[in-house]
Amino acid sequence: MSSIATAPRDEAAEDGLPSPYLLFLGDTVEPGYAKTAFGLRDWVGERCVGEFTLPGARVSTGLPRLAPRQAVAAGARGLVIGVANAGGIIPRTWIAGLVEALEAGLDIISGMHARLADIPELKAAAERTGRRLIDVRTPPKGIPVGAGVRRSGRRILTVGTDCALGKKYAALAITRGLRGRGLDVDFRATGQTGIMIAGAGVPIDAVVSDFVAGAAEMLSPAAPPSHVDVIEGQGSLLHPAYGAVSLGLLQGSQPTAFVVCHEPGRAEILGYAGHAVPSIEAVISATLALGRVTSPDIRCAGISLNTGKLTPRAAQAEIEAVAERLGLPAADPMRGGPAFERLLDACLA
Amino acid sequence: MSSIATAPRDEAAEDGLPSPYLLFLGDTVEPGYAKTAFGLRDWVGERCVGEFTLPGARVSTGLPRLAPRQAVAAGARGLVIGVANAGGIIPRTWIAGLVEALEAGLDIISGMHARLADIPELKAAAERTGRRLIDVRTPPKGIPVGAGVRRSGRRILTVGTDCALGKKYAALAITRGLRGRGLDVDFRATGQTGIMIAGAGVPIDAVVSDFVAGAAEMLSPAAPPSHVDVIEGQGSLLHPAYGAVSLGLLQGSQPTAFVVCHEPGRAEILGYAGHAVPSIEAVISATLALGRVTSPDIRCAGISLNTGKLTPRAAQAEIEAVAERLGLPAADPMRGGPAFERLLDACLA
Repeated sequence: MSSIATAPRDEAAEDGLPSPYLLFLGDTVEPGYAKTAFGLRDWVGERCVGEFTLPGARVSTGLPRLAPRQAVAAGARGLVIGVANAGGIIPRTWIAGLVEALEAGLDIISGMHARLADIPELKAAAERTGRRLIDVRTPPKGIPVGAGVRRSGRRILTVGTDCALGKKYAALAITRGLRGRGLDVDFRATGQTGIMIAGAGVPIDAVVSDFVAGAAEMLSPAAPPSHVDVIEGQGSLLHPAYGAVSLGLLQGSQPTAFVVCHEPGRAEILGYAGHAVPSIEAVISATLALGRVTSPDIRCAGISLNTGKLTPRAAQAEIEAVAERLGLPAADPMRGGPAFERLLDACLA
Repeated sequence: MSSIATAPRDEAAEDGLPSPYLLFLGDTVEPGYAKTAFGLRDWVGERCVGEFTLPGARVSTGLPRLAPRQAVAAGARGLVIGVANAGGIIPRTWIAGLVEALEAGLDIISGMHARLADIPELKAAAERTGRRLIDVRTPPKGIPVGAGVRRSGRRILTVGTDCALGKKYAALAITRGLRGRGLDVDFRATGQTGIMIAGAGVPIDAVVSDFVAGAAEMLSPAAPPSHVDVIEGQGSLLHPAYGAVSLGLLQGSQPTAFVVCHEPGRAEILGYAGHAVPSIEAVISATLALGRVTSPDIRCAGISLNTGKLTPRAAQAEIEAVAERLGLPAADPMRGGPAFERLLDACLA
């Protein structure tokens, strides 16, 4: 896949995360825990020089296996912790490897809940070597409350019927598709993996609620009329726990258009037994009603369906059925094709 | 007015804020800055032993003027900073008086943005005297994400067409009215003044967005079916900056009924020129659509109108017009009367 990074390499070095990356996989044995590493390989593979594993690891990205010093020699500037584990903590078995990376000259980038600098060995090694410990879950300081002032430029927000069903991948695919048409497009990241992919962004769910809209305004500032920001959505307005995150992001982003992301066949909200996934129609209706507060002309561009669990034939039938039912373009961005081109057309209409 | 405090005095001493209070007015000359002190006097006057002013003050609550030692002799346990100033900072001129209060044996309770313990003289005096510095804007630790599990008990939430138009006073008046009918009622506070009035609560706008619904769940836990929680609303779903706060509070609170608070005559969102105040109808519609996620039977009990700027005759006409237009009870809780009794009836219906 082609690069999705917002900033050219030098600019990212100034303002964003230090790349190229070395992807740290620890001693992970379960591929499901390595989603961040796979996301970086898939979307910004050319900014990943290799992977760094510890004894016992049974997961691989397929990139060259490099020790930190080899990675630095190959141009790496940051080690990304590309795996999560239950609890979001950093196990003791990782510490020697992470210290080795700092000593080799790499900054460390983490999206875990635990803060890197809270681990004494890492704090000491970073101070000794002059390297940085970067927690991308920590929002920037000085976020203002939302101003609600209308701003120029086009902004496309991915919203969802639930969490964890493809809002980030949809936004990345739309970014790539529009960039492929020669447009000036930025992917605006709101979660830890997205931020590592973009090299910048705001972890919107870690922002204090009074400032979520203001954080979204910072993330997608006024731009020339032809510029497009594609903003990674979070949560769902109709989610029992995360509606606040979604609404602040919606109202602060002032999207000119939004794409509803949905996974056919998912019946219940992930982790919330007894809560049915809302209809796409209900999400469109709520997004329009609440989005109009800051973006009076907001419209739904179409539907992004995550059909990864369906056969190609079933996926095609589902895409056509949803498009027909709603009278809107529908596509699975990961499958691409003419349906996805129609969705891109609608994003720009 | 009668007390609205949730907890009896001894219980508040164990789990909540230390009262009775001495109200600190500093050297304030502008009554508009003393809203917290006036709110405490109005709603929990019997828990306020007096006021403490510095030279130059030209604001008074009408309570006895007491030095800290006199207040302690009269039973006070906490000094409340009852004034705000532009910027939310604690001026140097207040520090000697606050140290005097600590030395007299009072804890200090603040709702300002600046944290008390960040002022070295206060930190040192608190350590020396063993007194507490309590910032009610600081949320409790360990707030979970929302669980979305339906819980027993009745919950009434005040929502609004804007900020700062009477959601706290409406909730307090409803609490008092229902308690006057002999019901088991708690006022659940979500802002700093409300928390000082109740002696407990959660500063919901200071909670990280991922946890707002969880914080609201903590604030109004499962209760016997006959119990009523009246929850202080914040912001507005249709506010350009604070919708996130309002939605997390709504979805976490699982209200069985809500009351829409509105100020007739307010045309623009306070501080957001060009943003029209939404209609009451739009707020009802959005609250129903988004509140149903966790409270399937949610309903609008009626409308609370802040008619403080109208003559009694104009207020009466406005109340009747709104009730007629919406087919719902409408009242100004601060004016009371039969209209307000009908609104209370509807809260229980």
